[in-house]
Amino acid sequence: MQASIISIGDELLVGQVVNTNASFIANELNKIGIYVKSIITIGDNESDIIQTFQEFFSKNDIVIVTGGLGPTHDDITKKVVCEFFGVNLKRDEAVEENIKRILSYRNIKWNRAAEEQSYVPEDCKIIKNNLGTAAGFLFERNNKFFIVMPGVPYEMQDMMSNYVIPFLGSIITGEQIIHKTLRTTGITEAALSDLIGPVDKFLINDGIISSTLAFLPSPLGVNLRISVKSVNKENAQKVLDKIEKEIRKKTEEYIYGINDEELEAVIGKILISKKITISVAESCTGGLIANRLTNVSGSSQYFDRGVVAYSNRSKVELLGVDESLIQKYGAVSEEVAKAMAEGIRKISASGIGISTTGIAGPTGGTKEKPVGLVWIGYSDDKNTFAIKNFYGNDRLLIKIRGSQAALNLVRLKLSGKEIK
Amino acid sequence: MQASIISIGDELLVGQVVNTNASFIANELNKIGIYVKSIITIGDNESDIIQTFQEFFSKNDIVIVTGGLGPTHDDITKKVVCEFFGVNLKRDEAVEENIKRILSYRNIKWNRAAEEQSYVPEDCKIIKNNLGTAAGFLFERNNKFFIVMPGVPYEMQDMMSNYVIPFLGSIITGEQIIHKTLRTTGITEAALSDLIGPVDKFLINDGIISSTLAFLPSPLGVNLRISVKSVNKENAQKVLDKIEKEIRKKTEEYIYGINDEELEAVIGKILISKKITISVAESCTGGLIANRLTNVSGSSQYFDRGVVAYSNRSKVELLGVDESLIQKYGAVSEEVAKAMAEGIRKISASGIGISTTGIAGPTGGTKEKPVGLVWIGYSDDKNTFAIKNFYGNDRLLIKIRGSQAALNLVRLKLSGKEIK
Repeated sequence: MQASIISIGDELLVGQVVNTNASFIANELNKIGIYVKSIITIGDNESDIIQTFQEFFSKNDIVIVTGGLGPTHDDITKKVVCEFFGVNLKRDEAVEENIKRILSYRNIKWNRAAEEQSYVPEDCKIIKNNLGTAAGFLFERNNKFFIVMPGVPYEMQDMMSNYVIPFLGSIITGEQIIHKTLRTTGITEAALSDLIGPVDKFLINDGIISSTLAFLPSPLGVNLRISVKSVNKENAQKVLDKIEKEIRKKTEEYIYGINDEELEAVIGKILISKKITISVAESCTGGLIANRLTNVSGSSQYFDRGVVAYSNRSKVELLGVDESLIQKYGAVSEEVAKAMAEGIRKISASGIGISTTGIAGPTGGTKEKPVGLVWIGYSDDKNTFAIKNFYGNDRLLIKIRGSQAALNLVRLKLSGKEIK
Repeated sequence: MQASIISIGDELLVGQVVNTNASFIANELNKIGIYVKSIITIGDNESDIIQTFQEFFSKNDIVIVTGGLGPTHDDITKKVVCEFFGVNLKRDEAVEENIKRILSYRNIKWNRAAEEQSYVPEDCKIIKNNLGTAAGFLFERNNKFFIVMPGVPYEMQDMMSNYVIPFLGSIITGEQIIHKTLRTTGITEAALSDLIGPVDKFLINDGIISSTLAFLPSPLGVNLRISVKSVNKENAQKVLDKIEKEIRKKTEEYIYGINDEELEAVIGKILISKKITISVAESCTGGLIANRLTNVSGSSQYFDRGVVAYSNRSKVELLGVDESLIQKYGAVSEEVAKAMAEGIRKISASGIGISTTGIAGPTGGTKEKPVGLVWIGYSDDKNTFAIKNFYGNDRLLIKIRGSQAALNLVRLKLSGKEIK
């Protein structure tokens, strides 16, 4: 089945908002084997919207529309959808109840905007919005599907996961494509490519089944996406499993997760199963590691505390780092990284302590200690050490790469690997 | 003048690569007053590309195409461009010289791919690629412009800045559009809309000048984008200033910045100018506030330390919170929020201490203290207080909203507002 995506919103054409919604939707559709033919972004303009609806719904089996469902004057999608399908708006009790629930969470009274949001088009299925007041709509006409969702990313994502994808997954027919992504970190794209070797040795393209391997670099590491297309999903799955096995043979230690799994969630699971607690002492990553660890629900089971020791004084006062170490070696040094990791582990009485100290820039670099230099410290009851890294000259990228390397170090140690 | 953007590449339709190129181009075009009507993403498919070229070049004054200019088998854009304009490829000496220069930088010999890249379409202007081997092309036909660039972001961005934008800026005629975004927080979209009142009272649409106001909600707050279109840029600027003034009259206290300014950067500037330091004690936001503060370069001037006190024990040990307060009122309470803010301020000897304690969920909520409840504490040398908020039931959103509210509280206090 073939789908296209229509993103509505002047903000996307001004360039201030990057269209992450379209990539999220495309990714989800591809995961269940639906081919995405095109993505179009248009403004909040009635005639443009109608014209695009007509053109895209005639050419595709599935059209997914986002944006323009809010309660203000510039949100016109709901009106235009009614015009396109020749239906009226009606008040919907379930939608009204949902809006009341959302408002009560936020301690807001029923208002004009809420009133407006409780009206939805006739003759369609309503997609419940668990996180906001704008409902979504699904129109089925002549075995084709036209789906409308709000443009607020988390609201749309929730609707996709809980309703749209399960629904489309149940009605899909024809050639399907399946994907699996192996997430690696701690290795460059070129080195990973060398390690894997010529891909035609294990990719199958025999006219019935076709498969590809894509290298997708990001600040968190290189993702390897395996894609297999076939009319038979079971066969596709077998081929995919075989390709995955080949790749894992050569790259296993760099793979931390699959698909959307984040490294902090992977570590969280291991910490819970091994009943080990962790604490962090951050300088250059500035709280990012603690923030990532606490993004995982249930992290309070293994995460006790974190310290962002930005100033030298705070390293001494909060972590018990010996002031003479800082004077002798500098705050960005192997010795201080080790003292920070050991310090946070001891004061929190946790199983593992990790630390970062580096130069995030753009100022503060010297020839010996350039911007991008990051020491990562690790301490458990058996040993304490630090490793040195260089992460380029972009402040935010240095923080992201530093946090990923620190978490990966924990993963490797937890899996029993000897680092140092 | 009206433009549309065509992004070519299968990777964009699979959804693992976000189309940041299109937003970059749209943003640059808007800055020089060119209105972007639509953005389309299509795959590396000849008939799709030709059809889209035809449709878009007939409807727009300017078409900008990126992607598919590389040297591998799936890059077909150059061939299709030749077909579309009815021209042949020819070898170009300047392009060849440029490729040699690029290859020598990287210590690579002349090869088949380089040979292929030295052929470019006839009857167009060549856009030099300073950073890569794929040249860009500019076709002028009947006072319309068709521009083709590679999809590698930094190569395209360099071409845009050095060639495309100066060129388009010099030939631009007719209507131009200017924008300004006012970033608000601490108020819902509906309440903001009520506060501003009917927009037609101050938006001017007189046939010569047209203006719009867009409400753009996000977890950080609602952005208000003012856009003004006119043939005279100075007049447009005057109208925009007037609209901004009208909106500010009613909403000033909610506006923290303009265009791309982040709240943490806004606060940073004030803290530096007032020579005040800040420290944070986070429970439910888990390090996000410290992370945001340290995203700003130069933040070490005013940010001394942060503590992520996740466990009750860490609140007592790190911040000196009285254990009996936690026993009596619970960790998520006004009293503990105040004690945390005061604690971090005192131990760090900083001017302002802020704190968060709440229930980020998904578990741990009760009827009296539901998921989403967040207490934000504030302490300076004059007073210490805490405010109560409800942020819905999504863990990551609760963290983001809590961090934004805490930073906004600091902004308001620094600007002399009485909160409590």
